Amino acid sequence: MKTSKKLVLAYSGGLDTSYCTVHLTKDKNFDVHAVSVNTGGFTQKEIKTIEANAYKMGVSTSKNIDAISTFYQKVVKYLIFGNVLKNNTYPLSVSAERIIQAIEIIEYAKSINAKYIAHGSTGAGNDQVRFDMIFQTLAPEIEIITPIRDQKLTRQEEINYLKENGVDASWEKSKYSVNKGLWGTSVGGEETLTSEKSLPEEAYPSQLEKQGEEKVKLTFLQGELVAVNNQKNAPEINIETLNTIASGFAIGRDIHVGDTIVGIKGRVGFEAAAAIISIKAHHLLEKHTLTKWQLQHKDYLANFYGMHLHEGHYLDPVMRDMEAFLQSSQAKVSGDVFITLKPYHFTLDGIESKHDLMNAKFGSYGEVNSGWTADEAKGFIKIIGNQNKIYQQVNAES
Amino acid sequence: MKTSKKLVLAYSGGLDTSYCTVHLTKDKNFDVHAVSVNTGGFTQKEIKTIEANAYKMGVSTSKNIDAISTFYQKVVKYLIFGNVLKNNTYPLSVSAERIIQAIEIIEYAKSINAKYIAHGSTGAGNDQVRFDMIFQTLAPEIEIITPIRDQKLTRQEEINYLKENGVDASWEKSKYSVNKGLWGTSVGGEETLTSEKSLPEEAYPSQLEKQGEEKVKLTFLQGELVAVNNQKNAPEINIETLNTIASGFAIGRDIHVGDTIVGIKGRVGFEAAAAIISIKAHHLLEKHTLTKWQLQHKDYLANFYGMHLHEGHYLDPVMRDMEAFLQSSQAKVSGDVFITLKPYHFTLDGIESKHDLMNAKFGSYGEVNSGWTADEAKGFIKIIGNQNKIYQQVNAES
Amino acid sequence: MKTSKKLVLAYSGGLDTSYCTVHLTKDKNFDVHAVSVNTGGFTQKEIKTIEANAYKMGVSTSKNIDAISTFYQKVVKYLIFGNVLKNNTYPLSVSAERIIQAIEIIEYAKSINAKYIAHGSTGAGNDQVRFDMIFQTLAPEIEIITPIRDQKLTRQEEINYLKENGVDASWEKSKYSVNKGLWGTSVGGEETLTSEKSLPEEAYPSQLEKQGEEKVKLTFLQGELVAVNNQKNAPEINIETLNTIASGFAIGRDIHVGDTIVGIKGRVGFEAAAAIISIKAHHLLEKHTLTKWQLQHKDYLANFYGMHLHEGHYLDPVMRDMEAFLQSSQAKVSGDVFITLKPYHFTLDGIESKHDLMNAKFGSYGEVNSGWTADEAKGFIKIIGNQNKIYQQVNAES
Amino acid sequence: MKTSKKLVLAYSGGLDTSYCTVHLTKDKNFDVHAVSVNTGGFTQKEIKTIEANAYKMGVSTSKNIDAISTFYQKVVKYLIFGNVLKNNTYPLSVSAERIIQAIEIIEYAKSINAKYIAHGSTGAGNDQVRFDMIFQTLAPEIEIITPIRDQKLTRQEEINYLKENGVDASWEKSKYSVNKGLWGTSVGGEETLTSEKSLPEEAYPSQLEKQGEEKVKLTFLQGELVAVNNQKNAPEINIETLNTIASGFAIGRDIHVGDTIVGIKGRVGFEAAAAIISIKAHHLLEKHTLTKWQLQHKDYLANFYGMHLHEGHYLDPVMRDMEAFLQSSQAKVSGDVFITLKPYHFTLDGIESKHDLMNAKFGSYGEVNSGWTADEAKGFIKIIGNQNKIYQQVNAES
Repeated sequence: MKTSKKLVLAYSGGLDTSYCTVHLTKDKNFDVHAVSVNTGGFTQKEIKTIEANAYKMGVSTSKNIDAISTFYQKVVKYLIFGNVLKNNTYPLSVSAERIIQAIEIIEYAKSINAKYIAHGSTGAGNDQVRFDMIFQTLAPEIEIITPIRDQKLTRQEEINYLKENGVDASWEKSKYSVNKGLWGTSVGGEETLTSEKSLPEEAYPSQLEKQGEEKVKLTFLQGELVAVNNQKNAPEINIETLNTIASGFAIGRDIHVGDTIVGIKGRVGFEAAAAIISIKAHHLLEKHTLTKWQLQHKDYLANFYGMHLHEGHYLDPVMRDMEAFLQSSQAKVSGDVFITLKPYHFTLDGIESKHDLMNAKFGSYGEVNSGWTADEAKGFIKIIGNQNKIYQQVNAES
Repeated sequence: MKTSKKLVLAYSGGLDTSYCTVHLTKDKNFDVHAVSVNTGGFTQKEIKTIEANAYKMGVSTSKNIDAISTFYQKVVKYLIFGNVLKNNTYPLSVSAERIIQAIEIIEYAKSINAKYIAHGSTGAGNDQVRFDMIFQTLAPEIEIITPIRDQKLTRQEEINYLKENGVDASWEKSKYSVNKGLWGTSVGGEETLTSEKSLPEEAYPSQLEKQGEEKVKLTFLQGELVAVNNQKNAPEINIETLNTIASGFAIGRDIHVGDTIVGIKGRVGFEAAAAIISIKAHHLLEKHTLTKWQLQHKDYLANFYGMHLHEGHYLDPVMRDMEAFLQSSQAKVSGDVFITLKPYHFTLDGIESKHDLMNAKFGSYGEVNSGWTADEAKGFIKIIGNQNKIYQQVNAES
Repeated sequence: MKTSKKLVLAYSGGLDTSYCTVHLTKDKNFDVHAVSVNTGGFTQKEIKTIEANAYKMGVSTSKNIDAISTFYQKVVKYLIFGNVLKNNTYPLSVSAERIIQAIEIIEYAKSINAKYIAHGSTGAGNDQVRFDMIFQTLAPEIEIITPIRDQKLTRQEEINYLKENGVDASWEKSKYSVNKGLWGTSVGGEETLTSEKSLPEEAYPSQLEKQGEEKVKLTFLQGELVAVNNQKNAPEINIETLNTIASGFAIGRDIHVGDTIVGIKGRVGFEAAAAIISIKAHHLLEKHTLTKWQLQHKDYLANFYGMHLHEGHYLDPVMRDMEAFLQSSQAKVSGDVFITLKPYHFTLDGIESKHDLMNAKFGSYGEVNSGWTADEAKGFIKIIGNQNKIYQQVNAES
Repeated sequence: MKTSKKLVLAYSGGLDTSYCTVHLTKDKNFDVHAVSVNTGGFTQKEIKTIEANAYKMGVSTSKNIDAISTFYQKVVKYLIFGNVLKNNTYPLSVSAERIIQAIEIIEYAKSINAKYIAHGSTGAGNDQVRFDMIFQTLAPEIEIITPIRDQKLTRQEEINYLKENGVDASWEKSKYSVNKGLWGTSVGGEETLTSEKSLPEEAYPSQLEKQGEEKVKLTFLQGELVAVNNQKNAPEINIETLNTIASGFAIGRDIHVGDTIVGIKGRVGFEAAAAIISIKAHHLLEKHTLTKWQLQHKDYLANFYGMHLHEGHYLDPVMRDMEAFLQSSQAKVSGDVFITLKPYHFTLDGIESKHDLMNAKFGSYGEVNSGWTADEAKGFIKIIGNQNKIYQQVNAES
C-alpha cells in the first residue's frame, strides 16, 4: 500500500529533483508529495510551471509554500540587526534561505504525516548538512532519502533516465548556476571553481542599465527597514523594492570564498544589492545611535551568529539567545539613511535620527567645546593612562 | 638660564603650532626645539619650508624625523595583518600616525635632555590623549605643556598675536582641514560636523583622473605587500606606489563616524586608496590560506587591536601579545592578488597562492567529489547534529 | 534661604559621612537629607541607630531605603545567570551594591527636588567613579559635593572636627574595614595593602562553627534560586538563608586582586559563601542543560558584563542587551543541585533536571552505544578533520 | 609476506588493546609493533610489565616512548599560561595527553614505515576522534585499524577470545576506570554515568593522609613553574613534586560534565592536585603582573584554546597563533606564590614579584594617595562617563 510510503520531496523543478521525483515514484513506489518553498526566488508564473511539471512526473500533490515573510522574520531581520557579512563579504544569501526552506518542508511533512522526506542535495556541499540536521532535529521519526547523494549520477545519466521515463524536457545546462532569493542571488560557474578568475559581467543576473546617480532614502525603525523613499511597507517588500532600484546600477556584486561545513573552501559569486545596501546603511545608523560597547559586543555575537547559521546550527538555542541580544540592541536604531547609487557602487551620505549621539550640544569632535575644561581633560588622561605608566615604570626598574 | 628650560615642540607649521612656537619662546622664555615627524605626509620641499619658518619664529633647532619605515614596521604592518577597519570602515589613518609621532617626539626629547614637551592639540579631541599618554608613559619626568588646550584662543586671536609678534604669514583657513599620511588622508569640513551631509567631490585630495579599468597585481609574502605589478620594493614604498596608481580613480573615499576617546561621537571624511585596497586584497588572500578558526579568532583580536590603538593604548603590553598572534597567523599568507581598478571603486578578481586551501584535489564545493562517500557525509551530519537533536528531544518531552 | 540648598547625603554612619553631615550642615549651611540604602548589610537595629545619629548631627531628614529586592532583580540575578566572578575569583560583592545604592540615592534626590548630592568617597578608589557617573547620568542637573575627596583630611582631623562640633562618638578604627551586603562581605586591612600576606582567620566576619558535613539542596527555576532544602522563597531570601547555613563552615573566603577603574591594582579580602556556592551550583546545572555554544558565548558576555559593572558602566545600554541574552539563556536552567558543605569548602555532588542533556537514551560517553555506528563515527571524523588535513598537505607540499 | 602488513598498535596493556594485539596478529596476520606513550602515568615497573605482556601476545616489537617532557613543552605549558580549565572546572588532563600520544605514535609509525596503525578506542567517545584526526592529518597514507570500534564486542567476549588464544591473564574489571598522567588522573565509574551522584572517597587515587596545614612556595619564571619550595627543576618534574606534596591532602578532586566531540554530554571524575594548584597560583601571579586587557583577552583565547584542544584540533595552525600570544603574555609573569595546603583544599596566600603592578608607590587603592588630585579624579570621571550621559540625555528627550 502506497500510503505507508508517503514521502515529501523538496522539489525545485531542476534536473536533480526531477530525477528524484521520477525515481522515487516509479522505481521506489513512494507516494511523492512535492513541495517548493518560496523565499523570494520564484515568480507566480514559475511556481505554476513547477507545479504543472511535478504533476506530469507523477507526484500525488504539489505545493509551493510562500515563506518570504517567515524568512524575513526568522532570519533576515537578525542578519540586518547584526550587519552580518560572512568573512566581511557575503550576506549569507543561500545559507539563510536553506534554513527556512528546511524548516518549512519538515513542518509540512509532519503536518501530512509523511514517513519519508527527500532532498536533491549532493554529498559534497553545505545544503545536505542544513537539510539533514534540521530534518533530524525537528522530526527524528521521519526517514531522509537522498537519491542524488547516494547514486552519484552524472548529469547525462539523469537526463537519459528521465527521457527513458517519458520526461523529455530541455535540460541544457546553463553556463552559470543561479540561486535567487530575497536576500541575494548566488552565481556559480567555471570561474568560481578556480581561485583566480572573476565572473564575467553576463554571469550576473542584473546588468547595468542606469547611469549617473540616484538618491535613495532608507528609513529604519528599531533596526527594521520600514520605508524606502518615504514609502512605508513591510520590511521584506522594502528589501525587494530596494533591490529593484539598485540592481539597475549592478550594485552588490562580489565573490565570496569561505569555509564550507565539510571543511573545504568554497567560492561563489553573488549579487545582493538590497542586502549589501541595507546592511551598510543600518550599520551607519548604528554608529550614530549605539554606544561603543554595543557596537563592539554586537560584532562578536554577529560574527558567530553568521558562522552558526551558515553551518546549519539555526536550531541551537544559543541562536535565540543571540537574537534576544540583537533585538534589545535595536531599541534606538531608528532614523533615515541617505544613500547615493551609482554604477557598480554606492555611497552612504549621512543619517538623521533623533537618537543620534553625535549631537553638537555635547561638544564637537576636535573643536573648542564647552563640555569640559582643559584641566578636566588632563585629569582624564592622567588617570586613564595610569596602568600603562605603572607597567612601564615597574618593568623598567625590574 | 635658558638651558634649564629646554623644550621640544611637536611642530607642524600650522597656525596652532606657530602660535605655540612664538608664545613659548617669547612669553615663556623656553628654549624651543621644533620637531616634526614624517609618517608619509610631507614632501621634501614642505619639510624645508617648515624648517625655515620654525627658525624665523625663534626656535633653537628644527628637525624633521623620517618615520615612514618605523610607522610601517610598528603599526601599519599589523593593521594589514589584522585587516583592521574601525567599525568596518576606517583604516585608522590618523590614529595610527599619532602614536608613532608621539613616540618619535618623546624619544627625541629624551635624547636631547629636554625638560619640557609641548604639543598643539585642543582639549576636545583624541590627539591630546594619544600624545599625553605616550609622553607620560615613556618619560614621566618630562613636563607636558599645551598652550592651545589651556588658552582656548580663537583663530583670530592667534593670528593677531602672531602679527603683533612679527609673524605675518597667510593663515587663511582652507575650507577643509586635511591630514595626509602613508595610511590615508583625513578630511574635515563643515559637512563632517553634521550627521547627514557628505563631503563634496572637491574636498577630497585626489580627483578622478582615470577612466576605464586598470589591472593591478599585489604580491604578499607572509602578509606583507612585497610587490606591486611585479615590482619588488619595501612594503611602505609599495603602499605609496599603490596609492599613486589608485588615487587617479578616486578610490578609497568614505566618511567614518566613531567613538572618540573622550566619549563623544566624531565624524571624519577620508581617502585611503592604498589602505583600503591592500587590506581587502590581503583579507581575500587570507580567506584562501587560513583555516576557519584562524579567520574567526583574528577577527576578535583585530577588532580590539584597532580599538586599543585608536584609544592610544599602543604601549599596553597586550598590543605586543596581539602582534605575536597576528605575526604567527601570517606564516602562509603569501601569493598574488588580482585587482581591477575602476572609477571610485575596485573589484578583487582572485588570487594565486601555493598555500591556497581551495584545492580541487581535496574536492570541489558542491560538485561530485572523491574526497568522501555519501555514507561518510551522512555519518558526519548525524553526529555533528547530535547536540541539537538531543536538546530538542529532551526539551520537547519535558 | 536654606530651601535653595537642599542636599541629599549618601550616609552610612561611619566617620567620613558623619564628618560630611556636620560639615555640610554647619559650615556650608546645606539642608541635609541623609539617606542610606540597605542592600543586605544592615539589621533593623543598625538602621535605627544610624537614623538617630543622623538627626543628632543636624540633618533635616534621615531615611533608609530597603533595596535588597531591587538589588537582586537588577544585578544579582544576572551575576548568577552569567556565573560572574571577576578574574575568576570575586563575585563583585561591593561593586554590584554601589551601583544600586547610587541609583536609589539619586532617584531619591530627584524625588525630593534636591539641588545637591553628596557622598563620602575618597579620590583614590572605585566608589567615587560609580557614584559620580550614575549621579551625572541620571541627574545631570544635580551638583555633586564630595568633602572627603576634596579636603583630604586625616582620620584624626575628622575626629577632632566632630569633637569640636559636639559629636563625641567613639571612632576607634577597627583593625579591618568591613562592607557587608547580600552578595558578600568585603574585608580590608593592613594585609590587603600588601601583595604577599593573607588575612588572618579573625578578620573574616564568620568563624568556623560547624564540623563534619552538611548536605544542601538548591533548586533553580530558569536560573533563579527558588528554594533551599525544598523551602521555597524569594531568591534574595534564599541567598540569605544559604549564607546563614554555609557561613558556619567559613566557606567562600578568598582574596581578590584586580584592576581598579583608576588604573591601579587593588586587593581585597572577601567572604561570600552564598554567592560562591550559588554561582558554582548554577554553573553545574548549566553544564548539564545548555549547549556547548550557549556555554561558550555566555562566558564571553559574562566576562564583559562583570567588567562593565565593576567599572560603573551599569547604565550603558549594552548591559540591557547582555541581560536580554542572559535571560534568554536561562529558559531551561531548572532543576536541583546537590551540595555537601564542609569546613572551609564544599563539593558539588550532582544535579537532577528534566532538561538534563546528559541522558543515557542518547548514548553514554565512552561506552558502547546505539546512537550511531562505527562507520558513522568514521565518516564524522573524516570530514570534521578535512580542513586540518588539507592545510597540512597543501603546506607540506609548498 | 608479513612486511607488507607492518602495523603500529597504540598499546596500553589493558583488555581492549590486548584483544587487538592477538586479533591483529593471529586473525589478521599483521606484523604488530606495540607502542605505549608515557605522559606521566607509568612507572618503570609498569612499563616493563606492559612490554613483557606484549611480547607474550605475539608482537614483533614493543616500545615505550617517554613523552613527559614533550607533553609539558607542547601542551601543558600553554594550559598553564592560559589558566585553562574546561568549563571552569577540568584541566583537560586526558584530552591533552591523548593529543601527544597520538602525535608520538604516528611519528613512530612513520619512522618504521608502518602501513597501518591501530588503536583500541570505541566509537562512542572523544579519543577515537583525537587519534584518527591526528593520524590522518600527519600521515594520510597510513591506514587506521580499529577493531574495538568495528566489532563492538562485550568485555566477556574479549576475555573469552583471549583465553581461547592462550592469554589467560586476570581481567577483572576494577570498579573504577582510572587514567593517570602528568596533568591529572581521571576516574570513571557507575556514579559518573549518572548526573546526580558523586564519587566515593575510595574511587580517587589519592587518599587523605595529611592533616593540619602545609606551606608551599611556587616560583614561576615567565609563566613556567621553575621551583617548588626553592628547589629548582624542570617544570614537568616540579609538577610531579607538587602533586606528591598535595595529593596527601586529597586536593584537586572534582567532577566535570562537558560536551564531548560527538555531541553528547560526558561526566568524569578527576584528581589533579598539581594542575589545579599551579593554574590557580599562576593566575594569581598574573593578576598582579598583567594589565587589565592582557587578562581579558587571555581569557577569550584560552577559553577557545581549551575547546579546540579538547576537540582534537591541536594541529589547526590557529593553535600556534594562540600559543604565540600566550607566550608573549608571559614575559613578566615571574615571581613567587605562597600557598597553604589543607585537607581537601588550599588557599592562595599572596605573591612576591618585582613585576607586581600593585605597588604602593603609585597609590594604594581606596586610601588617600598622591598619584592624582581630587580635581583630576573629577575630570577623569566626567569624561569617562560622557557617552552614557549623552545617551541618556539624547534618548530622554527623544
